[in-house]
Amino acid sequence: MSTPTADPGDIESVLAGLTESVAGAEMLIGDQISEEYEQDESLTVDPCRPTAVFLPRSTAEVSQIMRLADHHRVPITGRGAGTGLSGAAVPRNDSIVVSFERMNEIIEIDTENHVAVVQPGIRLNELDEALKPYDLVYPVYPGEYSASLGGNVNTNAGGMRAVKYGVTRHHVLGLEVVLPGGEVIRTGGKFVKSTSGYDLTQLMVGSEGTLGLVTEITLKLHPRLPHCATVLAPFATLDSVTEAVPRIVDSGVSPLILEYIDIMTMSATAEFTGLELGIPQEIKDTALAYLVVMLENSHESRLEEDTASLAEHLSELGAMDVYVLPSNAAEKLIEAREQAFWISKANNADEIVDIVVPRADIPEFMNRVAALANEYEAWIAGCGHAGDGNVHLGVFCGGDPHKRDRIMHELFDASRALGGAISAEHGIGLAKREHFLTLEDPTKIELMRRIKTAFDPNGIMNPDTIF
Amino acid sequence: MSTPTADPGDIESVLAGLTESVAGAEMLIGDQISEEYEQDESLTVDPCRPTAVFLPRSTAEVSQIMRLADHHRVPITGRGAGTGLSGAAVPRNDSIVVSFERMNEIIEIDTENHVAVVQPGIRLNELDEALKPYDLVYPVYPGEYSASLGGNVNTNAGGMRAVKYGVTRHHVLGLEVVLPGGEVIRTGGKFVKSTSGYDLTQLMVGSEGTLGLVTEITLKLHPRLPHCATVLAPFATLDSVTEAVPRIVDSGVSPLILEYIDIMTMSATAEFTGLELGIPQEIKDTALAYLVVMLENSHESRLEEDTASLAEHLSELGAMDVYVLPSNAAEKLIEAREQAFWISKANNADEIVDIVVPRADIPEFMNRVAALANEYEAWIAGCGHAGDGNVHLGVFCGGDPHKRDRIMHELFDASRALGGAISAEHGIGLAKREHFLTLEDPTKIELMRRIKTAFDPNGIMNPDTIF
Repeated sequence: MSTPTADPGDIESVLAGLTESVAGAEMLIGDQISEEYEQDESLTVDPCRPTAVFLPRSTAEVSQIMRLADHHRVPITGRGAGTGLSGAAVPRNDSIVVSFERMNEIIEIDTENHVAVVQPGIRLNELDEALKPYDLVYPVYPGEYSASLGGNVNTNAGGMRAVKYGVTRHHVLGLEVVLPGGEVIRTGGKFVKSTSGYDLTQLMVGSEGTLGLVTEITLKLHPRLPHCATVLAPFATLDSVTEAVPRIVDSGVSPLILEYIDIMTMSATAEFTGLELGIPQEIKDTALAYLVVMLENSHESRLEEDTASLAEHLSELGAMDVYVLPSNAAEKLIEAREQAFWISKANNADEIVDIVVPRADIPEFMNRVAALANEYEAWIAGCGHAGDGNVHLGVFCGGDPHKRDRIMHELFDASRALGGAISAEHGIGLAKREHFLTLEDPTKIELMRRIKTAFDPNGIMNPDTIF
Repeated sequence: MSTPTADPGDIESVLAGLTESVAGAEMLIGDQISEEYEQDESLTVDPCRPTAVFLPRSTAEVSQIMRLADHHRVPITGRGAGTGLSGAAVPRNDSIVVSFERMNEIIEIDTENHVAVVQPGIRLNELDEALKPYDLVYPVYPGEYSASLGGNVNTNAGGMRAVKYGVTRHHVLGLEVVLPGGEVIRTGGKFVKSTSGYDLTQLMVGSEGTLGLVTEITLKLHPRLPHCATVLAPFATLDSVTEAVPRIVDSGVSPLILEYIDIMTMSATAEFTGLELGIPQEIKDTALAYLVVMLENSHESRLEEDTASLAEHLSELGAMDVYVLPSNAAEKLIEAREQAFWISKANNADEIVDIVVPRADIPEFMNRVAALANEYEAWIAGCGHAGDGNVHLGVFCGGDPHKRDRIMHELFDASRALGGAISAEHGIGLAKREHFLTLEDPTKIELMRRIKTAFDPNGIMNPDTIF
């Protein structure tokens, strides 16, 4: 596939066409473009100033720019809240950014079908607030709660609650999508079941802005369970944590969250956030990993019963102790856990890993991580979604990009050797593209390129991302 | 896209090549081909004898035939257990059928990752038996339990338990797929989360054999909950049944099954299966619809508590009475409900509908159904998955195919007007292709055709199916 380079004349034609066809089109050019539009939260992708930023108010406006951009072969990069970690929202200097900040309405909360219909610019925390009065919840809970739903759809965001509820993909029932030529299609609907041609909804989810622009999202909601409890259990080894995980799932308590936090991350987090959980020094000195389990229930008595049974179970599984956290401490711990990325960033992490492996292989993977850290004289620490095999690691190697790339390559390779994948939830973007192209099966890459061409024959959608 | 017609010389070249390259290749030709390979369970698709049936034993053998067939442009139709209802397993007379009956092994039951890895020929009932000793379950439960997993993946089979567990799509974590040129790719893995390029797994699910042949499936398993209870509630109107549904979901009892059965189907089913549920004649005479709710739980006491609360709730929601069925009666009722298709077939139904609409729109849809039955002097009755908006109807119009097609077109149109879809779980196949091509957005069909070409440039995979 060709990756076009737009020349200034083409871009001007698009902008002129847009001014002509969209009354009151809001567009930023030159110095009007603030730095935020040049970047996302990726640690390694260099910011880049786009030619223009377009702030559409409607699907019709999105359709106009897509039609013009496709005609003039000008690259388009979609943007939500810019909280992505792989550079998929970082434009090229010949790109137009389409930023969805003004398409941020909740179109409908449908309490009969348990569905919300939203525009892509709405943020997770805004949607959550709007759903509370209805006792409904959109349960996907990635670390960054100011992320937009449009961004979540494009990266197939995951997070802590995937062990119970799955990821974004499992909650997107339908989409409105503007294709590069400007055509608007609607996929799926307010239902879970459909076998009526290929599932275009699922193909769009996780496509990182490379196939089209999502302008409306139909989301599956769940009853919001009122009671929850959090249990923290220190273990002497990470192996014993991960061995405990399938047994907890087997037991039928249906955990909402099953996280491990390694000792280094726990101390850094505690220090950074001032978190004090009342764990005796003796345990702090000997525990090498912590398991955090959160349960939820519609009945308080059942929750108490399950929490007691979980605590007993954890002791049998080798926990050094079990702490049922008071709700304020639990909230702080989960908040602190969400801060892990920012803590890593503040500590000058060189890269963040979001590898996934089969959950039973976490110990083997972590052994490989330790060996690599040793071999490269780097510091690699983290925490992760033990329930679903998603390992987050901060890689600290003193700012040497060459060393960083070698370590990352080896980590990805180790994950793939265990039947895992390069990215569980952050996406490939620009940051992991070279690793992806080197390590993934060329037959699959070729197939994905042909799918890309089926949507975007002129290659204008977020070029250089993924491929 | 061209739909090739293979000439006898091409087919002979494939068969000769196969004999040469696959030692002991098992192939059926001419009179060796029994009638079962000419059909599936569709009521309207005419049987057709293929040129040959190939019974591969391994992925390598599948790869060989795909390479040869693609080279010689000979159509390939994959076949599982042949229980499909839309003709997607019905070949053309210039096709080779690849039947997976000898690739029917369970490769692995992984109790640490809660995953099963299976070959496509394994049947749902065989997998279920194998999982019982591990207290694990593959929870997708379409009506026909002798269906193969490969067929389930290709039709994205749904069934009664979708209201709790979702459909096949939500349980397929990874696939091995042979592409038309013979290349073998592996997608996904033993994990729920991945954003590493386009989701080829989800694109294959529901593709009805038109993109490639699935040779291995990685399935997500769940803990098998030991206790279940079934409640049957007659209602005076179908509206009151469907109005009750979201309230039951809200209540947090997390029903496993939420089915409605209309009065005609209930009496036909009772008569056909000899089912006697002990419902007083007075209720039988006045109830127009029945709601069946099944609950499951890991704790017997909680199940009892939930069942009592559900029964009370149903009374408040207008049920004429509430029967908690003894387990043998409940089993019989669910079995009888599964027989609905066979009962319709035995009663000479002209077609079976598996339309989906947003579940709150079932009453409006059923009003339209009643009007159509009246207008066309037909009899249209059924039952359905009230929890997920999936309506199954038998259409009886005295064997007039022209009238049948007009009714079907109107039913599909009514579903689409409500934001629904043509097929929830049976697929488009050959049976609904014309309706699909007439009613679906041409932009989406064109896009799907381009995706098809990305996988299958020579158009050999199950030609005429879907498109």
